[in-house]
Amino acid sequence: KMAPGIGGFGGLFPLGDSYLVASTDGVGTKLKLAFETRNHETIGIDLVAMSVNDIVTSGAKPLFFLDYFATSNLDVDLAEKVIKGIVNGCQQSDCVLLGGETAEMPDFYAKGEYDLSGFAVGIVKKESLIDGKNIKRGDVLIGFPSSGVHSNGFSLVRRVLSQSGSSLSDKLPGHNTEQITLGEALMAPTVIYVKQVLDIVSKGGVKGIAHITGGGFTDNIPRVFPPGLGANIFTNSWDVPSLFKWLQEAGKIDDAEMRRTFNMGIGLVAVVSPVASERILGEHGTVCRIGEVVEGEGVKFI
Amino acid sequence: KMAPGIGGFGGLFPLGDSYLVASTDGVGTKLKLAFETRNHETIGIDLVAMSVNDIVTSGAKPLFFLDYFATSNLDVDLAEKVIKGIVNGCQQSDCVLLGGETAEMPDFYAKGEYDLSGFAVGIVKKESLIDGKNIKRGDVLIGFPSSGVHSNGFSLVRRVLSQSGSSLSDKLPGHNTEQITLGEALMAPTVIYVKQVLDIVSKGGVKGIAHITGGGFTDNIPRVFPPGLGANIFTNSWDVPSLFKWLQEAGKIDDAEMRRTFNMGIGLVAVVSPVASERILGEHGTVCRIGEVVEGEGVKFI
Repeated sequence: KMAPGIGGFGGLFPLGDSYLVASTDGVGTKLKLAFETRNHETIGIDLVAMSVNDIVTSGAKPLFFLDYFATSNLDVDLAEKVIKGIVNGCQQSDCVLLGGETAEMPDFYAKGEYDLSGFAVGIVKKESLIDGKNIKRGDVLIGFPSSGVHSNGFSLVRRVLSQSGSSLSDKLPGHNTEQITLGEALMAPTVIYVKQVLDIVSKGGVKGIAHITGGGFTDNIPRVFPPGLGANIFTNSWDVPSLFKWLQEAGKIDDAEMRRTFNMGIGLVAVVSPVASERILGEHGTVCRIGEVVEGEGVKFI
Repeated sequence: KMAPGIGGFGGLFPLGDSYLVASTDGVGTKLKLAFETRNHETIGIDLVAMSVNDIVTSGAKPLFFLDYFATSNLDVDLAEKVIKGIVNGCQQSDCVLLGGETAEMPDFYAKGEYDLSGFAVGIVKKESLIDGKNIKRGDVLIGFPSSGVHSNGFSLVRRVLSQSGSSLSDKLPGHNTEQITLGEALMAPTVIYVKQVLDIVSKGGVKGIAHITGGGFTDNIPRVFPPGLGANIFTNSWDVPSLFKWLQEAGKIDDAEMRRTFNMGIGLVAVVSPVASERILGEHGTVCRIGEVVEGEGVKFI
């Protein structure tokens, strides 16, 4: 049996007049930074975010979450910190932490290290499924701000850190509101978009939603478009946060690689009708109009 | 929010007139034996088995499964072998492989090694939920044969191997049907009980089901009993397979530790009414009557 929804952001399973929508993900090598900064309190938020943000792209409400925590020798204090973050993430997503597995696997992980994976299930009425198929030329791309690099691109982040000789305790250059360190900026927990997205979806006009993960705009936005349609992105329509500017300069990374690795300050993109876009931009101060749907394929940065 | 069903074999989420039942698990250090024997074809069956056998203890039919595969540097050939086992496990469980995540995490895993976790979701009508609460004194314990140690107790298995100086290519002593190696016996894939259990459940009289994982009979059987009830296990009612006899002798392990680590040849136990037990024993040649429900607490081996 093949899954009907495989290849989207979440897998779809038909159940009566609804779909169950499921997603699984980890937090990748962001974990290495958690180990180095000894910040284990928020990595669980990242874990929940990665799966529930996938699910909500279908318009589905997350129902429950399960986690898998694997380590060589269980450190109960450390595990509690991680679980606390997971509980926080579930609260932000209004979903139940239904279970989990703590696996003690000697000789698998380095001392003090662990891996995490998460699994979320949501539900959406079939008639309310958001799948991008009604997207038309002239529809508007609404961008939702990210809190930083979220949980993707950390292999590149670590290369930049090591090549530039920077320390996680160095101050982030160009950050104008308050002085924070590179470590703090990089560990900022992934935004959970569930409540905001479900609110917007409930008012109509939302046709497609892309969770901006590994692959950035370049790979993730086209996943929601019907054949023959693409997007123009207005690169001056939002401020790229200073963390990305630092990464680009310190790592001597070109624009194309930046855009297909990082979210560049926009963690989720909704494709909506022009009418809905006016309403959403009026009601939600933090989102912005970052592009439009055009004929063609792929994403063009203008 | 706390989950209603947490602590059982699967978490329960109420949905209309049904419960969604979810479980997550890995295969633990059985993976180390997969690495050593280079047998990656069946570990995916183990992965699916661990979760779906949990779910079916509620009488739930598995709907779908997702896997998480993490490794330092992706070896596509190896990953394909693993996924093939997962697909096989899903077929045996009659459930859909709805998605998965392949995580490449440099510096997390040793060369050629990987970790796996799996997530399964099933469904059962509320009125058909099996939760042990109707279990009465005099009910019968039906044992379903295992294929070996399944996916638990491998830390102890590895200790026995190393302390006894045995090699995975040594023949298993006392195995009477055909000559197999220790490696083959230990890597035998976990039995997936889904179809057999759902068939038996559909005919009525099944009150509780225990999946015999880490903790063996000692820890897993009491999980399904109401307060004040326990079980007598008739230790002579089935033949303990030669693999367990070898482990006990080679590792100088006492009975109590064997019984709270390994399944001893019985991978799943159903608690059924005496009437249902007659029918089940008549229809299913491979199962046997291994015990009965008595007043008291815990499991007594007689």
